[in-house]
Amino acid sequence: MSDRLAAGAIIGILGGGQLGRMLSVAAARLGFRCHIYEPGADCPAAHVAWRTTTAAYEDAAALRAFARAVDVVTYEFENVPAEALDLIEAEAPVRPGRRALSVSQDRLTEKEFLSDLGLATAPFAAVSTAAELALALDRIGTPAILKTRRLGYDGKGQVRITTPGEAAAALATLGGRPAILEGVVDFSSEVSVIAARGLDGSVACYDPGENVHEGGILRKTTVPAQLTASQRSDAVLIAARMVTALDYVGVMGVELFVTAGGFVVNEFAPRVHNSGHWTQTGCVIDQFEQHVRAIAGWPLGNGARHSNVVMENLIGADIARVAEIATTGAALHLYGKAEARPGRKMGHVNRITGPA
Amino acid sequence: MSDRLAAGAIIGILGGGQLGRMLSVAAARLGFRCHIYEPGADCPAAHVAWRTTTAAYEDAAALRAFARAVDVVTYEFENVPAEALDLIEAEAPVRPGRRALSVSQDRLTEKEFLSDLGLATAPFAAVSTAAELALALDRIGTPAILKTRRLGYDGKGQVRITTPGEAAAALATLGGRPAILEGVVDFSSEVSVIAARGLDGSVACYDPGENVHEGGILRKTTVPAQLTASQRSDAVLIAARMVTALDYVGVMGVELFVTAGGFVVNEFAPRVHNSGHWTQTGCVIDQFEQHVRAIAGWPLGNGARHSNVVMENLIGADIARVAEIATTGAALHLYGKAEARPGRKMGHVNRITGPA
Repeated sequence: MSDRLAAGAIIGILGGGQLGRMLSVAAARLGFRCHIYEPGADCPAAHVAWRTTTAAYEDAAALRAFARAVDVVTYEFENVPAEALDLIEAEAPVRPGRRALSVSQDRLTEKEFLSDLGLATAPFAAVSTAAELALALDRIGTPAILKTRRLGYDGKGQVRITTPGEAAAALATLGGRPAILEGVVDFSSEVSVIAARGLDGSVACYDPGENVHEGGILRKTTVPAQLTASQRSDAVLIAARMVTALDYVGVMGVELFVTAGGFVVNEFAPRVHNSGHWTQTGCVIDQFEQHVRAIAGWPLGNGARHSNVVMENLIGADIARVAEIATTGAALHLYGKAEARPGRKMGHVNRITGPA
Repeated sequence: MSDRLAAGAIIGILGGGQLGRMLSVAAARLGFRCHIYEPGADCPAAHVAWRTTTAAYEDAAALRAFARAVDVVTYEFENVPAEALDLIEAEAPVRPGRRALSVSQDRLTEKEFLSDLGLATAPFAAVSTAAELALALDRIGTPAILKTRRLGYDGKGQVRITTPGEAAAALATLGGRPAILEGVVDFSSEVSVIAARGLDGSVACYDPGENVHEGGILRKTTVPAQLTASQRSDAVLIAARMVTALDYVGVMGVELFVTAGGFVVNEFAPRVHNSGHWTQTGCVIDQFEQHVRAIAGWPLGNGARHSNVVMENLIGADIARVAEIATTGAALHLYGKAEARPGRKMGHVNRITGPA
């Protein structure tokens, strides 16, 4: 394939956190070199990358130099500013492409994209004013969740409305930013599918994992999820429709609620995903390598699982458990972050629970 | 344990080849940063390391600065000059320690160490002159192999003597360097044990792998090796005796010939070993992380294998097979070397053949 990156090619990664770090290692395994672009100093990815540019996303000269120095650009987070992408795209291909980014950057656009595909979502309404919020609450009912349309992650930028009387305070919390009201979905569990689509349009998915969140942050993913065979295949087909509809290239994380009426799509992330970290221990080709294969124009790995795995995040003070975990035979992945703040992802642990 | 390296500590690695590269990635997984010391430019390990010093092993100032900038020093090859080690040891602990290095650097010392431990080796004799070689050939017989005592690897620095008449030419080939004559062992197969010993004296071994060499270079390792249960346990016990006798800290590769009379120890390498690359795909904790755990004062992983694996080296022009291998679902590990010279290790492939 002519779009196949040559051996030794340079992959640019926007964002130097743990996802960039694990992408860099996976890219090296395939013989590529990685150049990280990250505003913060001493970022986790820089410890295992070929080059690092430390500069702001508003630094046009640095962005341009970075884009000219690499063969393809990818990213570890979906909130890359549009202006930065404009500059980069003039110099190098960005994968996954703009469409997936713009859809996922805005919760309203995302919900509309999913609805247009015929996929079930939570009931939703765009909300900018108190009047719109009142109408939306009338239609959707309570409890409901008011979320900023942009820049939300790990439970940030959202507030729960239990009774209509809380509406004004909720709106004030979001400080006038464009928002979306979402109905609360009555789900029995949450699963996620890590899907990949290659440059040639081929699609490969890992088996769904079952997620447990705490305080809006992923705590644990168990693979396989407790699903029937037909549910498993439904979940994978939903993710496959999404990546195909977006003409997507790379790995995508798709979160699904399991409900009595079938799957409801919660959201997707146009990147490798925390709920796919189990693939490092359960599969021959993990989600990070799968992403690199896709953006490099390589054939995708098949996503087969040799072992069942429980992945647990180490968050904030959990880092103190490392000494004990190190004695258990589980696979530790620490991110090299100096300071353990509450809510900060410091690492994760993959534990094999048996053969697949 | 007080000797346990703190999170974020810096590991110095002498040598920036593929072993240093894979050690660096494993160290990062445990939250450490790696500083590579390597004379050659653009070395494989530099692509995934925190820092790299490009300087000769004769550069005292560079060695001293390197040793002062790290918390512990390890190495990816056994031929580190003694003078360089003297300088480094004055500044930082070196693991594995000097004893293992000095024994393994000299084939004669190595054979004597093994004999003293009561382990079987090929018959051997020190040879410096034509007269000594004649006596040695008389005692050991032909065919035999004349090897330089120092600086041999991948079949380099050795010559086979099929009849006593070839003795003079063989000695000339080695250019007067101190040598050892070794009898040829009649073996049915070669296996290797990847053993590890922690700072606390605990020992853990991976299951033996069965090796096939071509032209003196490892071609393939298959795990499990075709051994009886009692042979497997014998092999592991031999390696365990060796690491304990050397008060060793780190991973060691021990090559054993399987003969009708039991195991004959061929040689050992005081470092991670090519025949242990299968552990990356077959085990939760691979040989590289095991080595890092040992030198960092962490508890060792247990070495259990979840899958059977065949590891195949990609040597020289084999690199052209990457496109085909990428379609097979096997795990590729490419070393990021720009030029594929004959005999040069460019990467390896791990293929799971079934559950363990």
